[in-house]
Amino acid sequence: MVSVGRIEPQAMHFAEPLPLTSGKQLNDYTLVYETYGTLNAARDNAVLVCHALNASHHVAGVSPQGDTGWWDNLVGPGKPLDTNRFFVIGINNPGSCFGSTGPTHVNPDPAANGRVYGADFPVVTVEDWVDAQARLIERLGIARLAAVLGGSLGGMQALAWTLRYPERVAHCVAVATAPKLSAQNIAFNEVARRAIVTDPDFHGGHYTEAGTIPKRGLRVARMIGHITYLSDDSMEAKFGRATRSESPVDGARHNYSTQDIEFQVESYLRYQGDKFSEYFDANTYLLITRALDYFDPAHGHDGDLSAAFAIARACRFLVVSFTTDWRFAPQRSREIVKALVDNRAEVSYAEIDAPHGHDAFLLEDPRYHSVMRAYFERVAQGLATRDERRAAPSRPAVPSGDGAPYSAREGSSS
Amino acid sequence: MVSVGRIEPQAMHFAEPLPLTSGKQLNDYTLVYETYGTLNAARDNAVLVCHALNASHHVAGVSPQGDTGWWDNLVGPGKPLDTNRFFVIGINNPGSCFGSTGPTHVNPDPAANGRVYGADFPVVTVEDWVDAQARLIERLGIARLAAVLGGSLGGMQALAWTLRYPERVAHCVAVATAPKLSAQNIAFNEVARRAIVTDPDFHGGHYTEAGTIPKRGLRVARMIGHITYLSDDSMEAKFGRATRSESPVDGARHNYSTQDIEFQVESYLRYQGDKFSEYFDANTYLLITRALDYFDPAHGHDGDLSAAFAIARACRFLVVSFTTDWRFAPQRSREIVKALVDNRAEVSYAEIDAPHGHDAFLLEDPRYHSVMRAYFERVAQGLATRDERRAAPSRPAVPSGDGAPYSAREGSSS
Repeated sequence: MVSVGRIEPQAMHFAEPLPLTSGKQLNDYTLVYETYGTLNAARDNAVLVCHALNASHHVAGVSPQGDTGWWDNLVGPGKPLDTNRFFVIGINNPGSCFGSTGPTHVNPDPAANGRVYGADFPVVTVEDWVDAQARLIERLGIARLAAVLGGSLGGMQALAWTLRYPERVAHCVAVATAPKLSAQNIAFNEVARRAIVTDPDFHGGHYTEAGTIPKRGLRVARMIGHITYLSDDSMEAKFGRATRSESPVDGARHNYSTQDIEFQVESYLRYQGDKFSEYFDANTYLLITRALDYFDPAHGHDGDLSAAFAIARACRFLVVSFTTDWRFAPQRSREIVKALVDNRAEVSYAEIDAPHGHDAFLLEDPRYHSVMRAYFERVAQGLATRDERRAAPSRPAVPSGDGAPYSAREGSSS
Repeated sequence: MVSVGRIEPQAMHFAEPLPLTSGKQLNDYTLVYETYGTLNAARDNAVLVCHALNASHHVAGVSPQGDTGWWDNLVGPGKPLDTNRFFVIGINNPGSCFGSTGPTHVNPDPAANGRVYGADFPVVTVEDWVDAQARLIERLGIARLAAVLGGSLGGMQALAWTLRYPERVAHCVAVATAPKLSAQNIAFNEVARRAIVTDPDFHGGHYTEAGTIPKRGLRVARMIGHITYLSDDSMEAKFGRATRSESPVDGARHNYSTQDIEFQVESYLRYQGDKFSEYFDANTYLLITRALDYFDPAHGHDGDLSAAFAIARACRFLVVSFTTDWRFAPQRSREIVKALVDNRAEVSYAEIDAPHGHDAFLLEDPRYHSVMRAYFERVAQGLATRDERRAAPSRPAVPSGDGAPYSAREGSSS
């Protein structure tokens, strides 16, 4: 399978203010996006891909800087989300540090005197992002998405599309996600935020003006996050208790140091933290973890998730979870499936027996990818202007009960 | 049941150097300890209690400062570890910040010119602590402990006693512990250490000289630790997504802030972190987490834990785990039990169905405490000079297969 190749990001400017959940608004903003494949004549083969915490519009192909897209193994010609069939859109959310208007950009408010937003960038929610995405989709002349797709925080956006614009999305593919964060999820986010906010280089979020970068806090935040992305078993398999080969002196196993690296897993985490602190923006980290915290579509329905999804019952869903994901465990996906089944919505559910924890949604697991491929075959079959030759099912589609809820389970959970 | 009452800590000075695993040694040190109950004429009713990361010699009763001991619910007259029968010793390990010689004490090395150790305090291991404890026990005139007991890191010390001094300990009670840290365990320790070490107030560990305290790092370290001590479910039950009652303005659910507290769990964690940073020493935190990292008795036996425990086969063991403990999950305790069974050592195993995660070992769960009570009844029955009236079993002891391995399971794990 080949890549979509070299991709140039595009930018779309919006002069009309975007009202936000918080009551504030975002004025005069730009969204950066990429597209792969071709929008068909009926304009009904568009698939929107929503990104998670540490990602961007650059979903597939190779960027001008030479970086491969974060979901390149899934999106491309002949890949599970086949760009020969679909017009795929990767979009960067407002508040990000990867191109769309965010805290590192100049605050257009005259009172800001040309300074960057920093901590003054307004708090954005999953719903705000979906509203911003909907405007871009509308401008592209797409009345209805063939599908909206996302993993983790991206999966929350995919779900929110079906709640805010149910008539504008045919299929929702929500991978490794949850209907809301647990107390433990929020707790991990909060520790990461405290590490950043209490870094003396943070300066209340106005570090750009101060000429500093709160790298210490970003490093610790990334290290914490990274632990929650991996399963206990995969960390054990990858590192175990292996020590740094250069560590032991005089044939001893350890250097007996409290500050130096002794174990490989420490070296790995420090490297991940260092790398992250070089490119990620601290205010963006705060904003995105807060968007995760706030997401709770059931809240407006007295905590009843089934009531929340009543509006989305005409959409069709694929929900995917991974057995070793302890950040958003399969149980969290089953809550979503239950709410959809309660509404007699058409839902397929796959619980993939994969060892990689939460990160599995980004990896090329054959069972996972075959579920995704089968589902997008089904989405393609629903297109009004489908190419009959291509649409002939070369692989079995995920079986469906003709509109009745269907739950497919891939692999097993013990 | 009553408490052991007001307790005065005692101190014992050691002039002879303590050789350490690292190859260094500890000169001229003091150990602080407390005792509860009375040493009998045969001097065979002593039980040593080993402490975990954030604890001390103050196991039971009320300190001169008015603090209740950390295991007061377990240790006292008529309690599961009954001080009417046993002479219980709580001991503070070297490297601690609670009284025994540690990084906050003056370095006796003349080259240090009367400065505190700080980062120059030598790295200590679980085995070093056990050696220090053994000297104190010897000085108390106790040739053999009726039992050594500990939870978490304390459980590792209890296990290490049976490996280093098998002839000097009759019973070992190891609660909520593991035979070594996993990669994930080490990873969490490392993030906490990085938060401390990269705090600008840390000054390479010589913050006392600099007149600072790395409170930011200590706060983050404690917050991370705290998450791993609680189960996901118990955090959910305790906090869920509850917001601070004073948080919402104008009837809104949230303040929409990236830096202020929105959720109760954030408030709780910040409070725990703040409190901890007021009394705990940063170098001690590094030393104790490193002792956790280094503990690996199987390492000297090519990773074969059964081979490691061959020397301890004459000791008798109670191993206890808790179903929702994800820091040291039941599987980790079962590894210990298997190694003991492989050696035909006498071992009882209880897996307690408790919701509180790792912290359960400190709590007063009726099933947990009944297992502990029954086991210590059995220990009492083995004393040479037992009081026949008291030793008559008023409660059923944990059954034993007359020296054959026995595994008791309390509650169920799914």
